Amino acid sequence: MSTATEVRAALSEDELSQVDALWRAANYLSAGQIYLLDNPLLREPLRPEHIKPRLLGHWGTSPGLNFVYAHLNRLIRRHDLDMMFVTGPGHGGPALLANTWLEGSYPEVAPEAGQDADGMRVLFRQFSFPGGVPSHVAPQVPGSIHEGGELGYSLAHAYGAAFDNPDLIVACVIGDGEAETGPLATSWHANKFLDPVHDGAVLPILHLNGYKIANPTVLSRIPGAELDELLRGYGYAPHYVTGSDPALMHQAMAATLDDVHARIRRIQDEARGGSRERPRWPVLVLRSPKGWTGPSTVDGKPVEGTWRSHQVPLPNVRGNPEHLRALEAWLRSYRPEELFDRDGGPKPEVTALVPRGERRMGANPHANGGLLLRPLPLPDFAAHAVVVPEPGASSAEPTRALGRYLKELFANDAGRRDFRLFGPDETASNRLDAVYDVTAKAWQAEVEPADEHLATDGRVVEVLSEHLCQGWLEGYLLTGRHGLFSCYEAFVHIVDSMVNQHIKWLRTARGIPWRRPVASLNYLLTSHVWRQDHNGFSHQDPGFIDHVANKSAEVVRVYLPPDTNTLLSVAEHCLRSRDYVNVIVAGKNETPNWLGPEQAALHCARGAGIWEWASTFPEREPDVVLACAGDAPTMEVLAAAKLLREHLPRLAVRVVNVVDLMRLQPDTEHPHGMTGWEFDALFTPDRPVIFAYHGYPWLIHRLAYRRTNHAEFHVRGYKEHGTTTTPFDMLVLNDMDRFQLVIDVIDRVPGLARTAAPVRQAMTEARERHHRWISEHGEDLPEVRDWTWS
Amino acid sequence: MSTATEVRAALSEDELSQVDALWRAANYLSAGQIYLLDNPLLREPLRPEHIKPRLLGHWGTSPGLNFVYAHLNRLIRRHDLDMMFVTGPGHGGPALLANTWLEGSYPEVAPEAGQDADGMRVLFRQFSFPGGVPSHVAPQVPGSIHEGGELGYSLAHAYGAAFDNPDLIVACVIGDGEAETGPLATSWHANKFLDPVHDGAVLPILHLNGYKIANPTVLSRIPGAELDELLRGYGYAPHYVTGSDPALMHQAMAATLDDVHARIRRIQDEARGGSRERPRWPVLVLRSPKGWTGPSTVDGKPVEGTWRSHQVPLPNVRGNPEHLRALEAWLRSYRPEELFDRDGGPKPEVTALVPRGERRMGANPHANGGLLLRPLPLPDFAAHAVVVPEPGASSAEPTRALGRYLKELFANDAGRRDFRLFGPDETASNRLDAVYDVTAKAWQAEVEPADEHLATDGRVVEVLSEHLCQGWLEGYLLTGRHGLFSCYEAFVHIVDSMVNQHIKWLRTARGIPWRRPVASLNYLLTSHVWRQDHNGFSHQDPGFIDHVANKSAEVVRVYLPPDTNTLLSVAEHCLRSRDYVNVIVAGKNETPNWLGPEQAALHCARGAGIWEWASTFPEREPDVVLACAGDAPTMEVLAAAKLLREHLPRLAVRVVNVVDLMRLQPDTEHPHGMTGWEFDALFTPDRPVIFAYHGYPWLIHRLAYRRTNHAEFHVRGYKEHGTTTTPFDMLVLNDMDRFQLVIDVIDRVPGLARTAAPVRQAMTEARERHHRWISEHGEDLPEVRDWTWS
Repeated sequence: MSTATEVRAALSEDELSQVDALWRAANYLSAGQIYLLDNPLLREPLRPEHIKPRLLGHWGTSPGLNFVYAHLNRLIRRHDLDMMFVTGPGHGGPALLANTWLEGSYPEVAPEAGQDADGMRVLFRQFSFPGGVPSHVAPQVPGSIHEGGELGYSLAHAYGAAFDNPDLIVACVIGDGEAETGPLATSWHANKFLDPVHDGAVLPILHLNGYKIANPTVLSRIPGAELDELLRGYGYAPHYVTGSDPALMHQAMAATLDDVHARIRRIQDEARGGSRERPRWPVLVLRSPKGWTGPSTVDGKPVEGTWRSHQVPLPNVRGNPEHLRALEAWLRSYRPEELFDRDGGPKPEVTALVPRGERRMGANPHANGGLLLRPLPLPDFAAHAVVVPEPGASSAEPTRALGRYLKELFANDAGRRDFRLFGPDETASNRLDAVYDVTAKAWQAEVEPADEHLATDGRVVEVLSEHLCQGWLEGYLLTGRHGLFSCYEAFVHIVDSMVNQHIKWLRTARGIPWRRPVASLNYLLTSHVWRQDHNGFSHQDPGFIDHVANKSAEVVRVYLPPDTNTLLSVAEHCLRSRDYVNVIVAGKNETPNWLGPEQAALHCARGAGIWEWASTFPEREPDVVLACAGDAPTMEVLAAAKLLREHLPRLAVRVVNVVDLMRLQPDTEHPHGMTGWEFDALFTPDRPVIFAYHGYPWLIHRLAYRRTNHAEFHVRGYKEHGTTTTPFDMLVLNDMDRFQLVIDVIDRVPGLARTAAPVRQAMTEARERHHRWISEHGEDLPEVRDWTWS
Repeated sequence: MSTATEVRAALSEDELSQVDALWRAANYLSAGQIYLLDNPLLREPLRPEHIKPRLLGHWGTSPGLNFVYAHLNRLIRRHDLDMMFVTGPGHGGPALLANTWLEGSYPEVAPEAGQDADGMRVLFRQFSFPGGVPSHVAPQVPGSIHEGGELGYSLAHAYGAAFDNPDLIVACVIGDGEAETGPLATSWHANKFLDPVHDGAVLPILHLNGYKIANPTVLSRIPGAELDELLRGYGYAPHYVTGSDPALMHQAMAATLDDVHARIRRIQDEARGGSRERPRWPVLVLRSPKGWTGPSTVDGKPVEGTWRSHQVPLPNVRGNPEHLRALEAWLRSYRPEELFDRDGGPKPEVTALVPRGERRMGANPHANGGLLLRPLPLPDFAAHAVVVPEPGASSAEPTRALGRYLKELFANDAGRRDFRLFGPDETASNRLDAVYDVTAKAWQAEVEPADEHLATDGRVVEVLSEHLCQGWLEGYLLTGRHGLFSCYEAFVHIVDSMVNQHIKWLRTARGIPWRRPVASLNYLLTSHVWRQDHNGFSHQDPGFIDHVANKSAEVVRVYLPPDTNTLLSVAEHCLRSRDYVNVIVAGKNETPNWLGPEQAALHCARGAGIWEWASTFPEREPDVVLACAGDAPTMEVLAAAKLLREHLPRLAVRVVNVVDLMRLQPDTEHPHGMTGWEFDALFTPDRPVIFAYHGYPWLIHRLAYRRTNHAEFHVRGYKEHGTTTTPFDMLVLNDMDRFQLVIDVIDRVPGLARTAAPVRQAMTEARERHHRWISEHGEDLPEVRDWTWS
C-alpha cells in the first residue's frame, strides 16, 4: 500500500498543508492520551515519570478515524454541510476526543480540558484514568450517538439518525472487524428503506485497515473485485481511497469526498425533483494501514500495518528505555511545535479547515437529540378506549385498539415526521394495522401489483431483522425523535445485547448535564409466551423482562397491562416519557375488558392495586391474596376467583393486579418501588399470596424477597413447559390454570385442606377432563372457551 | 413467473413423472397436515367434521421445500450422495414431515404414523395438535438439526455440520425472509472458513418466494443483476431456477442440480489434488411462487404467489362451504388416487426416486449426531495443573493453563478432527494461544507475510461474529463432534436468543428416545466484568448466567472456578459431558493458586465446600460465613478473611467457595441442587452469610430464597457500576471490596457493631485512601496490588 488509487489535485497546497496539520495534530493528541501523564507538549525530553502507569487504549484505528474526520471537516466547510459522525470502531475514543478538542466542542462541555497546555494535560491524563473518561466514544464525547463498545450497530444507528432528517448527512465509519458481524452485514440493506425525499443521506465509509485484535479481516482479504461486487450487490456505488503516502492519500480522499458529496446531492435533487428510481448511494472504501504513522517496528516485529498496533504499540515505555525513546520519536514525528502555539492551543493553520458553531460535528445538535426533541402530539387515550359497563362483560383485542390510537398519532404527526413504528414484519400480525390507514411501510425496492401499504415515504419500518429495527430506533431516538418497537416477545432476546448498550448509554447520559433527555425506547412485546398457537416451544420465552430487570433501575420500566384500556393508558404514558427503556407486554388476542378508561388510568398510575369488584368480603382482612401480572394470568386469577366464590363462598379472597412490575421492588431499589408499608397493605403481612405471573416465576421472588410476607408468596408462571398446543393447555402445562390456582389456595390457606377436600378433588378432576378433551378434540374445553367473568 | 430460466431435458419422461409424483405427494401431505382430522385419502367427499377445529401451520413455504427435497432425492440416488437437509424456513414443518413419511424415515421413529391410511391419519391429526408434534422442523423430525423457529441460523448450522465431514454435502434452504436477518447476512462469508480438503460442502439454496408474513422480501425485490452481484460478492457462483410451470421447473431444477453437484465435485477434486485457490462454491437461487400449487384466489383476493398464503390460505373451512369446496378441489388437484395405493401407502412411482437406508436425508446419521459421537481423547488435567505447595503462595493465569491443556487435546485429536475451538477474534486475547503450537486458525482467504497461525486446515475458528461462532458450534455438535466457544463475557449476550433455542432443542431431544446424546455446548466466558481495564462500562455484563439460569434445569450448568486448577478440572468435566449447556466463567489475569490438582478435582466434584485453611476456629460453629463464587470475589473474600484474622482474631469465620452455581438451588429444582441438610451444613441455619458473587447479586437470592437461612444472606456483586478504571476500583464501585466485606461482617454479626467500631472505621478509611490514591496515581494501592494470602 504505497500509492493512493486516485490522485487528482483536489486540494490546493494550502489546503493540503492544512488538512495534514489537522490530521497530525489529531494523531499527536490520540497517542498522547494513551501514553502521557505529563509533559503534554513535549517541551522537555520525555522521561518515565511522564508516562501513565497503566497503558490503556486503542491506537490502531485512531489515525484512520483522524484522517476521515479531518477530511470531512474540509467537506463541511466547503459545502456548509449539516453532518454527523458515527464511529463504528468506537474504541477509537482517543481520536474523537482529539478531534472534538481541536474543534473546540469538547472544551465547551469539559472546560477543564481547554485549548491550552493545562487543558491538554487534562485531556491526556483523564483518558482511561480512574475518575476520568472511558476509552470509547461514550456519551461523554460530544457529537457521539454511538459508543461502539460492542461492534455491529454503527450503520443501523446512522440510518436511524438520517430518517426524517432530509438535510442531514450521517458519515459512518465502519471498521472491517465490525463488518464481519451479522447486524452490520445486514445493515447495508438499509438503503432499501431510506427515502431520498424525506430522509437524509448516510455515507458509509468502510475502513479496511486489515486487522482485528489478532486476525486479518474478511473484507480486506478478498479480491478487490469481489468486494466491489459485494458492495454493488448491496446496492451501493463504491468509491475507493487506497494507500499510505499521506500527501497522495490527502489528495485522493479530498477528490473522492468531493465526488461522493456530488453524488449524494445529485440523488437528492433528482428524487426531490420527482424521480422514482431507487438510487445507488455512494460508499467510500478507505484502505489504509492499521496504526498508520505509528511505530513501524517494535522489538524487531512489524507493528504499523499489522494487528500488533491494535491497542498499545509500545507496551513497556516506563520500564524500557528503548521503548521510551521510540515513543518520543513517534510523538515528535508529528512536529507538535508546528501544531500548537506557545500556550498549547492549536495554531490557526491546524484549525483552518475546522467548521464553526453547530457545523462542527462535535456540536451538531442532532447528536444531542434532546436539544431538538418536541413532545409528541399524543391523542387522548380515552378517545380510543373501549366502553366497559361492567368488568369482564365484553372483550377486545388490546393491540388492535392500540393500532387505532397509533393511527391517530401518525395522523397528528404527519407534518412533523418525528414518530415511527418499527417491527420485524409483524405490524399486521400484531394487529396494529389500523396505522396503514394514514401511513405506509417504508419501501424503496420494487413494488408489485398485489402489494399493499408500501410507499417510499412510509413511517412504519418493517424488515425481518430485530437488530435493524432496534438499531434504527436507537439512532432515531438519540437524534431527538420518538418511536415504538413492536416485536414477538420471544425474539426480542435477539437484541438483548443491544438493549444492554442502550441502557448503559442512557444511564451514563443521565449523569452528563449537557446531554438533554431523549424519548424513551418503547417496546411492545406481543404474540407472547401464552399465545403461540401456531408456533410452539421455540416462540415461548418471557425472559426479556428478567434481562432488563438486571439493568439500572433509573432507566428500566416494565408494564404488564391486563386488558385493552390499561394497554392504552400505559402506551400513552410511555410515549410521553424520557430517558427510559419501557417494556410493555400485551396480548393481541381477544381479552376481557376489566377496567374502563378512568379506572384504567388510575390503576396504571398506581401501578398495582386491589380489584375490589373481584374480591370477596373486601371489608375483611383476606384469607388469601390472588395476585396477577399479565393478561393471561389476570384472566386465570379471575376465573379462579369465580370458582372460589362458587365453591368456597365464605372465603375472603383479595384480587391484586400488578401493571407496573417494578412496583414490587423496594423503594430503595427502584424509583417505582413500593414502601414496605404500601406493599404490606396490598399483599398483607402474613396471608398466603398465590401469584400468577406472566413470566418466569422466580422473578417475582427476586423482586419481592425483602418483603415481610415473602415466605408466603407462592408464584406460578412459565416454567419452560411448552409446545404447539391450545391456550388453556399452555396454562395447565405450567400449573397456572384456574383449577391449579384454586388447588394452591386450598393447599395454602390454613384449615382448608380438610374442609375443602371435595373442592380440591373437583379441581383435579377438571384438569383431567381437560387432558382428555383436548387430546380428543384439539381445542379447549367449552367451559373454558366460553368462560366469562360476569 | 411462468417459465423456468433454463430448460434442458435433464430428466427422462419417467423421471419427470416420478419427481412430479413425489412432489405432489409431499404437497398433498403438507396440506393434509394443516387441515385434516380424518378422511386422509379423500376417499369420501370432504365434510366439515373432517377438518381440524383449529387450523394451524404454514403452507406458504411448504411446496418450495417439497420441490427441493424431491429433487435432492433424485440427486442423491444418482450420485449416491451423503447429504443432509437444513430447513431455514423451519416453520415448514409439514413439508419435512411429509417427505420423511414418504421416504419411510419418519415411520421408523414414529411407528404409529406408518405408511398406510391409519398412519396418514395419525400424521395429519398429530400436527400442531395437543399432544402431537409441533409445527416446526423440531427435534421430533428425523434428519433435522435445525428447528428454524427463530430465523437466521440455517446457513451457520449447515457450515458447522460440514466442518470436518469431507464426504458430506449439506443442502441448506434459506428463506428470503430469513435472509434479511443479520446472522444470515454474515453467514454467507462462512465460505472463507470452509476447507475444501478436510471439510464437506454446503449447498445454499436461496428460496425467493417473494414474501414474509405480510411483506415482500428485500432480496426478491432488487434487480436480478444486483442479487447476482451480491452473491458473487459473497464469493459464490450463483445458479438460478425461476418459474412456476411444474414441468419446466422440474427440468430446470434437475439440470441445475446436476451442474451444481458437478461444480462441488470439481472444487473438491481440485483442492484435494493440491490446488490452493479459494473456490467459488455454487449457490442455487430458486424463485418460485409462495404457496405454489395452493389456492390461487380466496374470497376474490390473490393468494398463491402472495403473502396471503403464508400460513393457512383457506381460513374458514369448517364454517364456510365455499372454503370447504375450495380445499377439496385443492387437495384433489394433487390426484391422491394416483399417489397412494389401496392401503394408503405411497405407490412405487412416488418413491422411485427416494434413496435407501442412511442415504435418506431423514435417516442420515450426521443429523442424529450422537450416533457418531466418540469420547474425546482428553488429556489428564492434572498433567497441566500448577503446583500449589500452599494456598495463595503462587499465582497463574487460568486461561493460559487451559490453553496448554487444549493444546494437548488438539494434538491428541489431530487424526480425528472432531474438536474445534470457536471464538470472535479472542483466542489470543483470552490467552489460549498455546493451541497455535499444534493447529492454526481456519482461513481460506488471502494471506500476507506478517500473518501468523493461519492455515486452510486450522481447527481454531475465529470470526468477529458471535452469531457465526455459536451457529457453527451448534451445527458441529449436533452432527456428533465436540467444541468450546471462548467469548468475552459481556458480548455472549449477542447469542442469548440462539442459546435459548439450543437449550430448547436439547431439552426436547432428551425426551426423544431415538435422539442420541450429543456433546455439550461449552462456553468459556473470560475477559469478564471485573477485568475490563481497557474497555469499561460497555464491556461489563455478567448477566448471561442469569439468562441461562432461567432455562431448563436438566440442560444448564454454570461453573465459576476460582483459580487455575479448578478451571482445568471444570473444563475437563464439561468436555466429557453430554447434552448440556455448560457456562464456565474464568479470568485470564494472574490469579492466586488456591487449590492443588487433587483438592481442585475434589472441590469441583462437590461443587461447593468449606475452605478450612482459610477459616478460623473451624471446629466451632462460625460467627459468620464468608461465601464466594468467582475468581475476583474469591480473592476479595480471602483478603477480607485475612483482615478479619488480623483485626478480629477471636471471630470464627467460615470461608465457603461455590464452583458449581446450581448447587445453591434446591435439589427439587436442579439435578445439582443441594438438599436442605447439605445447604444448612455449609451455610448454617442462622449465621450471617456475607456472599461475594461474580454477577448480579440478586441471582444468589433467586437461587437460595427457599433456604432456611435465606434471611441472613447478604450478597455483594455487580450492580451496574462501572467505567474504565482499575481492577480494585471496580470492586469498590460495586461495594464488593475487601474493606466493605469486613464492614459487612461487622454490621451483620450481632454484637460487633460496638466492639469492632475502630476496625470498621479503619476499613472506611482504607476505602477513602483508595479513592485518593487512584485519582492521583491511576493505579491501585500498593497494599492491594502486592497483596498475598500467605
